Amino acid sequence: MTGDRPPGEAATLVVVNIGQLVTGDPRVRAPGVVEDAVLAASGDRITYAGPASGLEVAIGPETIEVDAHGAAVIPGFVDAHTHLVWLGERSEEYALRAAGASYEEIAEKGGGIRSTVAATAAGTLDELITATRERARRMLRLGTTTVEIKSGYGQSLAAELRQLRAARGLGTEPDLPDVVTTYLPLHGLPDSDRAVYLEGVLGEGLAAAAPLAGFVDCFCEIGAWDVAECERLLVAAGAHGLRAKVHAEQRTHSGGSALAARVGAVSADHLDHATDGDLRGLAAAGVTGVLLPGASMVLGGPPPPGRRLLEAGVTVALATDCNPGTCWCESMPLMVSLGVATAGLAPAEALLAAPAGGAAALGLGDRGRLLPGLRCDALVLDTSRWLDVGYHLGANPVAQVIAAGRLVGP
Amino acid sequence: MTGDRPPGEAATLVVVNIGQLVTGDPRVRAPGVVEDAVLAASGDRITYAGPASGLEVAIGPETIEVDAHGAAVIPGFVDAHTHLVWLGERSEEYALRAAGASYEEIAEKGGGIRSTVAATAAGTLDELITATRERARRMLRLGTTTVEIKSGYGQSLAAELRQLRAARGLGTEPDLPDVVTTYLPLHGLPDSDRAVYLEGVLGEGLAAAAPLAGFVDCFCEIGAWDVAECERLLVAAGAHGLRAKVHAEQRTHSGGSALAARVGAVSADHLDHATDGDLRGLAAAGVTGVLLPGASMVLGGPPPPGRRLLEAGVTVALATDCNPGTCWCESMPLMVSLGVATAGLAPAEALLAAPAGGAAALGLGDRGRLLPGLRCDALVLDTSRWLDVGYHLGANPVAQVIAAGRLVGP
Repeated sequence: MTGDRPPGEAATLVVVNIGQLVTGDPRVRAPGVVEDAVLAASGDRITYAGPASGLEVAIGPETIEVDAHGAAVIPGFVDAHTHLVWLGERSEEYALRAAGASYEEIAEKGGGIRSTVAATAAGTLDELITATRERARRMLRLGTTTVEIKSGYGQSLAAELRQLRAARGLGTEPDLPDVVTTYLPLHGLPDSDRAVYLEGVLGEGLAAAAPLAGFVDCFCEIGAWDVAECERLLVAAGAHGLRAKVHAEQRTHSGGSALAARVGAVSADHLDHATDGDLRGLAAAGVTGVLLPGASMVLGGPPPPGRRLLEAGVTVALATDCNPGTCWCESMPLMVSLGVATAGLAPAEALLAAPAGGAAALGLGDRGRLLPGLRCDALVLDTSRWLDVGYHLGANPVAQVIAAGRLVGP
Repeated sequence: MTGDRPPGEAATLVVVNIGQLVTGDPRVRAPGVVEDAVLAASGDRITYAGPASGLEVAIGPETIEVDAHGAAVIPGFVDAHTHLVWLGERSEEYALRAAGASYEEIAEKGGGIRSTVAATAAGTLDELITATRERARRMLRLGTTTVEIKSGYGQSLAAELRQLRAARGLGTEPDLPDVVTTYLPLHGLPDSDRAVYLEGVLGEGLAAAAPLAGFVDCFCEIGAWDVAECERLLVAAGAHGLRAKVHAEQRTHSGGSALAARVGAVSADHLDHATDGDLRGLAAAGVTGVLLPGASMVLGGPPPPGRRLLEAGVTVALATDCNPGTCWCESMPLMVSLGVATAGLAPAEALLAAPAGGAAALGLGDRGRLLPGLRCDALVLDTSRWLDVGYHLGANPVAQVIAAGRLVGP
């Protein structure tokens, strides 16, 4: 059982009357379900997660007790791939795409990444924070307790750094998801010479961004950045302590996942056009595969290879890709539904791909499951069945959000 | 313009400062957009829907004024196909299907429609109303102001009638969507002899259900009811004043849409396996095509033929199909997103398919657009852009709901 060591100190928070507790413990029935359970935390850490009958939690006068009234409790979602800092909106581009315009035609009409870059790079830090805060609040209400946020709409170094600072600023605010930042300097192509731009990124860019980011990322795609350019970035970033992520095989097969495996990236993301050989390479290198089924659906194309990734032995994460171009979506519950409906995942696999898979994609060993010693990021649902997260399509099943052992919303 | 006849009497409700008013008026830019607009109602009827500059609404002391603060206002959604009255849940079946179990295998394990029939037929009227009310409330919060509700989980006449009474009971409650009822006696196959069951439906069933329902419906599908059986029902129902609807070409091509055209049905629903010839037949007969893109996504199979329906000249409706087996979803905004992403509709087409298409599928000439003389069912959004309804995936863009000229939620 997950709760065989009752804590010695008084719990600061305890959730009682949990009908189904999804721990993510692989030793019990997937997705690690304990019935009639209790969850206890001391500070930001879980001290007990197991059957009520096995509990010897010390309840002190300061203990906050949350009665789940038989509801299910699951780990807080870790949304491991978002472009959450943006200004300007692209709803007209959404209409153009629906009318059949290609990625290239949209770019020619002033749409695409360039339009977001123009608007976002012109924004002040306060404007960036205000716009992003609203999205982050929606995410928290939908159960996201940790969110990765990329730069990538700046192109100038100053604008890229401002986006990273905006993301980190939000991470210090109360009642918002915990924030992990990623420097994404190779996204859309710059107006300036690409070789000159790349040299700037490798020099001044990485040096300035490294203190503000945990990861580096690149859009490895035909029409964007090629494998050689991306590889130079990822290798150079490693010397600055930034772990690699790769936008790989999204619109075409461009070699990004082999690159991710070669450089030991923490994740390869999208993968809609990945081959079975790519997936075996990711498995061998221990790279987490991040699926973005919202973007896959909006753009059309092949379904996300969830089943194939699992069969190849790759850890799977589900994320929103929240961005103004191809998927404006803050909802991890919807990603769980899409993971089952379109990516071939079983409900238990999809449910764990959202928190535990996301944590793996961010190299975070301290969260994503509800086990003693981990961060107490948990969601009390409005239903007694964890299955409803994916089954109840388009709904928000989250009744209460606990982040770092504290009741924060919604 | 839509608002060239100022009303003579005082408005009872007026919505001012509307950034974009979606009227559905085909004479102005799709989806009938008027900028800087005002919407006024007297009683449950719209008296003015047009530019603020053209307004001469008499504002009386009793007038309720809603300030949209620049937000968009759109027609309330008409969800024209739901199975909202059910008891028992089928989340385990959801897991089985994700694991690859077929419709037939699920039925063999006690799942499928039969399991819902067993639970629902055993419920009291109060139990049915309580379970359904919760779903209807979620629908209203998501902008549905009119909902069609089918029987179909009874099989015994008493149970079918109880479901219709539950639906009608909700229709009389305040702050819930307006309810239209459909008698669906040919849905799952009965335990008893099908011929005997059908004779009962054609005799006692239709006579008893007709006062409680506006429509009759049948599941015309291999493994369910065949064209000849369905045709007998639809023709006999016509003599009782019930207009026909048909579940057609959902899982296979079974001839339901040709039947719908032949009997002059008000709608043919699903249509995932419809041929171009079927669609031409629907157009010629004036049958509305109801697409259920949530169920299409959950079940897999071909995409909903939205573009093909429009090209054939068929009026298209989008609906949730809300049911416990293949699509537990109350969200019409998500159906608009899916209509664009998976059914080939342009955003303006999808937005109007949800209210105006739904109204057509229910033969309701008094709603679905915001034009003088129609029912004032309108949604004040949380955004200035109507495009965001489909563009903002998995969100609820509805800030305020106006039903029959009254502010009712959320």
